[in-house]
Amino acid sequence: MNLARLASVLALVSVTLACASSRPDATASPQPPALAPTAAPALDLAPYRTEVEALVRDSLSKGQSYAILSDLCRTAPKRLSGSAGAARAVAWGERTMRAIGLSNVRLEPVLVPHWERGETESLRILDADGLPEERLPILALGGSVATPPGGVSGDVLVVTSFEELRARAAEARGKIVLFNRPMDPAQHDCFAAYGGAVDQRSRGASEAARAGARAALVRSMTMALDDHPHTGAMRYDADVEPLPTAALSTRAADLLAARVATGERVRVNLQLSCRTLPDVLSHNVVGEIPGHGAEGELVVVGGHLDAWDVGHGAHDDGAGCTHSLEAARLILARGLRPRRTIRVVLFMNEENGARGAEAYYRDHAGELERHVLALESDAGGFTPRGFATDANPRAFESLRAIVELLDTASANALRVGGGGVDIGPLARAGVPLVGFRPDDERYFDHHHCERDTLDNVHPRELALGSGAIAGLLHVIANLPQPLPRNPLPASGR
Amino acid sequence: MNLARLASVLALVSVTLACASSRPDATASPQPPALAPTAAPALDLAPYRTEVEALVRDSLSKGQSYAILSDLCRTAPKRLSGSAGAARAVAWGERTMRAIGLSNVRLEPVLVPHWERGETESLRILDADGLPEERLPILALGGSVATPPGGVSGDVLVVTSFEELRARAAEARGKIVLFNRPMDPAQHDCFAAYGGAVDQRSRGASEAARAGARAALVRSMTMALDDHPHTGAMRYDADVEPLPTAALSTRAADLLAARVATGERVRVNLQLSCRTLPDVLSHNVVGEIPGHGAEGELVVVGGHLDAWDVGHGAHDDGAGCTHSLEAARLILARGLRPRRTIRVVLFMNEENGARGAEAYYRDHAGELERHVLALESDAGGFTPRGFATDANPRAFESLRAIVELLDTASANALRVGGGGVDIGPLARAGVPLVGFRPDDERYFDHHHCERDTLDNVHPRELALGSGAIAGLLHVIANLPQPLPRNPLPASGR
Repeated sequence: MNLARLASVLALVSVTLACASSRPDATASPQPPALAPTAAPALDLAPYRTEVEALVRDSLSKGQSYAILSDLCRTAPKRLSGSAGAARAVAWGERTMRAIGLSNVRLEPVLVPHWERGETESLRILDADGLPEERLPILALGGSVATPPGGVSGDVLVVTSFEELRARAAEARGKIVLFNRPMDPAQHDCFAAYGGAVDQRSRGASEAARAGARAALVRSMTMALDDHPHTGAMRYDADVEPLPTAALSTRAADLLAARVATGERVRVNLQLSCRTLPDVLSHNVVGEIPGHGAEGELVVVGGHLDAWDVGHGAHDDGAGCTHSLEAARLILARGLRPRRTIRVVLFMNEENGARGAEAYYRDHAGELERHVLALESDAGGFTPRGFATDANPRAFESLRAIVELLDTASANALRVGGGGVDIGPLARAGVPLVGFRPDDERYFDHHHCERDTLDNVHPRELALGSGAIAGLLHVIANLPQPLPRNPLPASGR
Repeated sequence: MNLARLASVLALVSVTLACASSRPDATASPQPPALAPTAAPALDLAPYRTEVEALVRDSLSKGQSYAILSDLCRTAPKRLSGSAGAARAVAWGERTMRAIGLSNVRLEPVLVPHWERGETESLRILDADGLPEERLPILALGGSVATPPGGVSGDVLVVTSFEELRARAAEARGKIVLFNRPMDPAQHDCFAAYGGAVDQRSRGASEAARAGARAALVRSMTMALDDHPHTGAMRYDADVEPLPTAALSTRAADLLAARVATGERVRVNLQLSCRTLPDVLSHNVVGEIPGHGAEGELVVVGGHLDAWDVGHGAHDDGAGCTHSLEAARLILARGLRPRRTIRVVLFMNEENGARGAEAYYRDHAGELERHVLALESDAGGFTPRGFATDANPRAFESLRAIVELLDTASANALRVGGGGVDIGPLARAGVPLVGFRPDDERYFDHHHCERDTLDNVHPRELALGSGAIAGLLHVIANLPQPLPRNPLPASGR
């Protein structure tokens, strides 16, 4: 999950606002939309409970979640778009779909960006003679340009907002700017705290360039105080010089800021050898459980197959790929024959481009009206809390009742929110979107850093997510009627 | 939390049953009790929301939870009743209560059992010549007798239930019985899975003695498949010979069982040097935030100060002590003056005797009618899910509304269940009991084993628990009227 999420969340809020403006009983606040008592006929969900609970039990007691994720992490631990690892991940996805018995397995082409970290990556504090004194842990941000050989040196200017940088633009000239506003620890919702800080990563280099700086550093997007830098995507505005840019570990950021705060002149040298290569042909990986009776109607479930080039991408988003594959496998293993077709999509390039998301939307334009619902898991493999959705009020009430069936998977809370970056474009066609929401307290300890490894995923927590998603898919794919679609956003499609 | 919990849960179920039998609208199932619509005047909780949310924010952004727990784990990592570590923990509790500004801080005496592990602890597989071939990881169970010097040797008999053992009693004579029924992985509620397996630990030695065995081994009470044995309490029936007894790691149990399943004769040697010493004078540690206006009414919050002699007792129950102390500190730090007195109790000897629980009940007999509510945290320091309570239907509905205020601490679910071993005796006086319920997927990975260390506690997860409990205490201590008390159980007090 990346900075594109922020844009996606904002897009969803505007959809919600659009909904709200057309219905006096709905609000734009993150509360479940109000529903007129007579609006929806009550769903009879009792017939589904037994199978839903069995799917969760199967996932816990004889599931394959951890085996699937282990296999992915062993096969393609580094799988950033365009890399050899990403190609291995695509082959793995196709092979795994066939192994679990999905039908119509295929690769759908998508041209993706290809950025490489390169060999050299260092940040050194320089002593009074300009010699390296101490090395601090950094990771170049995805999309950054390289420094010249020998790097870029400059005094450090520490700011906590773009406003502060603009106010101190005179000081910034020729310096290396450190954006050091932490994720707000008082914020209970860690994704909201991330959203409140990630502009520094995504736009910091452009703002620093406008102020005449030589490079931009950013405090890692985590509340953990440790030595692991967290990378992530950034984008250069078209009208500025592209500056080299990297993330520091939170402890390194604190150290630099503390030294600068003493009034001391702190000079650093940044060296990066990252580069952007020509786009590469890659693929979304798609497979299905064919429906019986309403096979033309589609329920999409997915995660993203690409991951940053550090750690294993175990939580982000190996977990989401695993949830999607295992949910389908659980349904097949119980011999269930859903009325609607369940389509598993492993999207490519969520992290630095969302090209797979756009390709899916574009290539399936003719059948989007038959997409009943799309669900994404891209928030880690922790214990489920429930789901978030942009669904219209009538669909929301039905989803709430369905999600309440998932209490044995700890997944019985439904709230208003985004579905996910990869399914985001489908909102333009009125498809109700659902995002899986696990516990988020540990997510940003691991996100986009070396710690996002298999051993930091708990087998039962992962399996509960798969079971919850299987249960939700089972109900949605078998309801007598599809959920009401969302109104098309004002921009149309 | 120990085998006494099982007894406690059973006691609470019987209380629930007693309630149910006297009210046709209640049920004994673990569902919220039904409430006649006119029974309770709606509580106006709006005035509390701002402070509740501020307590949670304070806990996350400037709390002391992790510092308090670190201090305990550093000062007294091993603190089983009667040990020097337990005495250090008592002194720590008193000192910490004074440091955070509690009033009326005192030590309340309680005579506790004193069991020691001793130096020798080994289980070896013997080869055909009776020589040690392989050593397996074990921990003696708390309360076990020692083996003779040189240990006890015998062939292994593997069973998965007492029924199976009785049916195979002829085979058991002279053998070493391994009770190897796993915690049921299909069970979503890990405490229920524990409750379904822990009889093997608590009563296995007595059942093995009845069958004429020489010693009893038990598969560790965890769903993790690893090399860490988990200890815990056991008790000898009065009518049987006390056999030495120990827990094996789950992998070791699988290994032994697999070898026995081949039909091979598997002979082992068990050596234990543990012993029970004379009882020791110890203490519950008590401190208060004095009430203003209704100071005679008491709201109790606590955890247990003792812990097993392995790991740090970080989750069990350093977390509960921390939650209780920090909740009080948060309330004081905001300058709140509760109407009722909030009493923090750090109980001694939960793990192998619950003597502190009984001492508190006995020594405070004269004021139990003024105990408005008692809350215990003894399920770990993980992300909150909410609370469980044995409260009567009217109090349940009020508590549910109060707990819903705790959504910013992820603690907004209330369900029927036990409060905790240490507050359990207060049920006899009609005090409504509440147990803090965090996520439980990881709890039994750490419970009673070397892995229950500080580094396995997440600072934000711990802080959310403290904030949630502070919020609940704030409301309960300031309600215009106390919650309705529970009917006295049939046995009276």
